[in-house]
Amino acid sequence: MSFSPLIRQLIDALRGLPGVGPKTAQRMALNLLERDREAGRHLAHALESAMEGVGYCRRCRTLSETEICDMCDDPRRDDGLLCVLQSPADVWAVEMAGSFRGRYFVLKGHLSPIDGLGPEEIGIPALLERVEGSAVAEVILATNPTVEGEATAHYIAGLLKPLGIKVSRIAHGVPLGGELEFIDGGTLAHALAGRTAIG
Amino acid sequence: MSFSPLIRQLIDALRGLPGVGPKTAQRMALNLLERDREAGRHLAHALESAMEGVGYCRRCRTLSETEICDMCDDPRRDDGLLCVLQSPADVWAVEMAGSFRGRYFVLKGHLSPIDGLGPEEIGIPALLERVEGSAVAEVILATNPTVEGEATAHYIAGLLKPLGIKVSRIAHGVPLGGELEFIDGGTLAHALAGRTAIG
Repeated sequence: MSFSPLIRQLIDALRGLPGVGPKTAQRMALNLLERDREAGRHLAHALESAMEGVGYCRRCRTLSETEICDMCDDPRRDDGLLCVLQSPADVWAVEMAGSFRGRYFVLKGHLSPIDGLGPEEIGIPALLERVEGSAVAEVILATNPTVEGEATAHYIAGLLKPLGIKVSRIAHGVPLGGELEFIDGGTLAHALAGRTAIG
Repeated sequence: MSFSPLIRQLIDALRGLPGVGPKTAQRMALNLLERDREAGRHLAHALESAMEGVGYCRRCRTLSETEICDMCDDPRRDDGLLCVLQSPADVWAVEMAGSFRGRYFVLKGHLSPIDGLGPEEIGIPALLERVEGSAVAEVILATNPTVEGEATAHYIAGLLKPLGIKVSRIAHGVPLGGELEFIDGGTLAHALAGRTAIG
């Protein structure tokens, strides 16, 4: 025995972070305790505030601490253009790219029948509701360029076409098999600009 | 703009952890918010408890949430043997090794006059106080095998010798499981000089 209970608990809790193993967690705990307790307290407070205060935007379903997020609320954005993505991280990535000025809609991942994730589970009915009777003239499908992401895009395209809405897919400037979240802004901007009609 | 203030604060606070850059912090924040808020709350609580509740053992100066740590308090440990280390992390490492059953004393790093860290700053007077008039018969100097660690060990040895206490230094040699081919010359020279009879 060498860790006291509070230190042991802290190390275990740090291992709850993605990519943090036992050695890293131990190093983090020690660093905070020995060198920077203020950073530790600050992190505790930031975690608590975020876990309690951050919910989802009622309109686009991205992470937001207000009922309607800043991007949905911004009157300068183009209501005619709706970009559909798989996760809030993807919204962040597209925003960082800086070239898109339309609206967003965030799915809960991609279709995956084998995991029990059908259209209902990932929020496709809510997307149709969002689009119908709205000013949206074009839906850009920006799901990941993976097999599942493509399948999800095609499924959604099939539903939107009959509604007379233009449906496009981000261009193949994005490398196949990559994840949108990790792609650089320039590539993403190209992919948005070079979008092609689908279906 | 794409992160709301609470998310931005959380990402910034996570960057206070050692080895966590902006991308990793973003991934951690998203993972907690999207997949595991319970882990986030748990971490907040563990951090708060540890930052407030963990202090230093009055006797050995390792991190402890009690005035005297479990290792100093354990009556089954050998009072005659005192192992001197540079940090609480080193205590943990020696404890994990499992073979040492004496007591510990933790310095605040090593001597570094250039940084204004003299004997007083790293706790050498407290070490002498701890040893004098105690049951300690042998002090094992287990500071790091670096130039500064060696210098610190030699300095302490010079102070303890006149007190009639046996002073030893942890052995230098090849680490178990290592390959000779990749071990530096200094270590090899030490390993050869410190060879022991076999069979």
